[in-house]
Amino acid sequence: MKEVLRADNPGIDSIIDYLTDSSGKMIRPRMVFLTASMSAHDPLVVRDAAVAVELIHLASLVHDDIIDHAMMRRGRESINRIWGNHASVLTGDYLFASAFNLINMHGMQDIMENVTTTIRIMCIGEIKQMSLVGDLNVTEDEYLEKTYGKTACLFASSCKVGALAGSMPSESVNALEQFGLCLGYAYQILDDLLDFLSESSLLGKPVGNDLLEGNITLPVIYALKSKDYGTWLRSLLENRKLNTHQMAEVIQILIDSKAVEYSLHLARQFMTKGISCLDVLPVSSAIKELRLMASYMLETYYQKLSHYDCPSSQEAARL
Amino acid sequence: MKEVLRADNPGIDSIIDYLTDSSGKMIRPRMVFLTASMSAHDPLVVRDAAVAVELIHLASLVHDDIIDHAMMRRGRESINRIWGNHASVLTGDYLFASAFNLINMHGMQDIMENVTTTIRIMCIGEIKQMSLVGDLNVTEDEYLEKTYGKTACLFASSCKVGALAGSMPSESVNALEQFGLCLGYAYQILDDLLDFLSESSLLGKPVGNDLLEGNITLPVIYALKSKDYGTWLRSLLENRKLNTHQMAEVIQILIDSKAVEYSLHLARQFMTKGISCLDVLPVSSAIKELRLMASYMLETYYQKLSHYDCPSSQEAARL
Repeated sequence: MKEVLRADNPGIDSIIDYLTDSSGKMIRPRMVFLTASMSAHDPLVVRDAAVAVELIHLASLVHDDIIDHAMMRRGRESINRIWGNHASVLTGDYLFASAFNLINMHGMQDIMENVTTTIRIMCIGEIKQMSLVGDLNVTEDEYLEKTYGKTACLFASSCKVGALAGSMPSESVNALEQFGLCLGYAYQILDDLLDFLSESSLLGKPVGNDLLEGNITLPVIYALKSKDYGTWLRSLLENRKLNTHQMAEVIQILIDSKAVEYSLHLARQFMTKGISCLDVLPVSSAIKELRLMASYMLETYYQKLSHYDCPSSQEAARL
Repeated sequence: MKEVLRADNPGIDSIIDYLTDSSGKMIRPRMVFLTASMSAHDPLVVRDAAVAVELIHLASLVHDDIIDHAMMRRGRESINRIWGNHASVLTGDYLFASAFNLINMHGMQDIMENVTTTIRIMCIGEIKQMSLVGDLNVTEDEYLEKTYGKTACLFASSCKVGALAGSMPSESVNALEQFGLCLGYAYQILDDLLDFLSESSLLGKPVGNDLLEGNITLPVIYALKSKDYGTWLRSLLENRKLNTHQMAEVIQILIDSKAVEYSLHLARQFMTKGISCLDVLPVSSAIKELRLMASYMLETYYQKLSHYDCPSSQEAARL
């Protein structure tokens, strides 16, 4: 990745070094490699497709941090914090252009079509999300639409890109794309749950940060509809600046109203549906790895809330 | 352009409508059309290449306005001002992705290679420029390097893209690219001059705005080296917040030190060199149009400073 991004210009190179020194979970490039490995493929094409997908993800994170005024990313100061908005906008653009340049080198027209369309969807989704900030009447459908643009479509794209790089038949491409899509939904739902249930030290941001930023996520949407807890929660949330005590109260409502349980249930449903999409493909070690990736995602989730005594962690034992 | 950008989402569509309602001078797409028209070409390919180049230009403007905290663009409020940083980052990304998506539809791999490389150069150049803000020791070479990334490389790319869309032989492609490059340098030098010499009402921003923002342009670089005026100018500029009276003093120095004259001379040199690049191509109406474009650029410049009685406007009569 560093090699692709090298510009021989100290300005951008130092930002890129900082950015690539702390790698994330690399879920998306891993998906590209795994899906491509199911059929004969050119390893250089697949490597570059995987790098491109991670670059697109990185670009969107760098630009998100401008939007959210985020000071931290992956446990370190954000690009934004160190180099300012100016450099962050340009770094994101540079990453996008580098990703497209890399894909284009191999003339992968179908992959280019997929990733450029995906970025368009991501942007439209994020702009839509802006209009929903702080809106306590947001529906579950709107939440899922937002989640599609924010996370699920790039997960789907990562799997599709790998499958296309492996020149798989369209039925297999579609199945893998669907798997990625479902995993993306599950991943985001779990991530939104962790925002309430994880410890602040693990999150690297305050507990309930999404809510503090006006991002109304699934558990809150569910609890707001609850006959027993809805009115109470709404009155708490109409007070825009929740203190730690009030946030603890909100979280207890999310647990007691079964909103946590419902969200976890929906995440598991997406995961199960995603895994079932793989059934049309011949069994292989890559398929096993994809299944493992899904269960690892749930496991990490449970680990992160192991300190928490809520019904969902007891339910976990049954998985 | 509107058709390409339509997202059927009210959030982004209203921003796009606003953005495309006020078209700029369309220099870049015009270059694509003109250069492509010199040989047999697919009109749809050329149209989409021209749209893509303008989208890339628009994306860079939208992102620049975030960087510069610009409140106005093309005589109207900036996207940034109306919809905020958040929407501006995403709108720029959306425009970039739409441009690549459009180029890719025709499988124009050489064009894609050119535009993605151009955007990388633009980003690197802008990041470099950041390190030069307010630096009174910036050299003419550094100014030209900055101008390459800021303007000249996209002008060059516009001409090259048209030539590639017209499948011209490589000698012609190179000649047209060089023409675009030279015109880009000339255009930016004139634009930087106008920042001092035009009227505030024509500029839509205060006279000397570049300097106020710490952007040290060619006339200032030249005047700072002057034996007679350098020390005086430096002492004025070290006072970071120039008032209107001091700015008028700076401008008088730029005229008296012959910095304006020198800059205009360099712009004309670039223009002459650019036009001479066209000599290898057979005479055609498109070639004539490209020459006209160059002279129109100078003419507009003179018109804009017609209120000004400085040596350069007298020199204009000799052109």
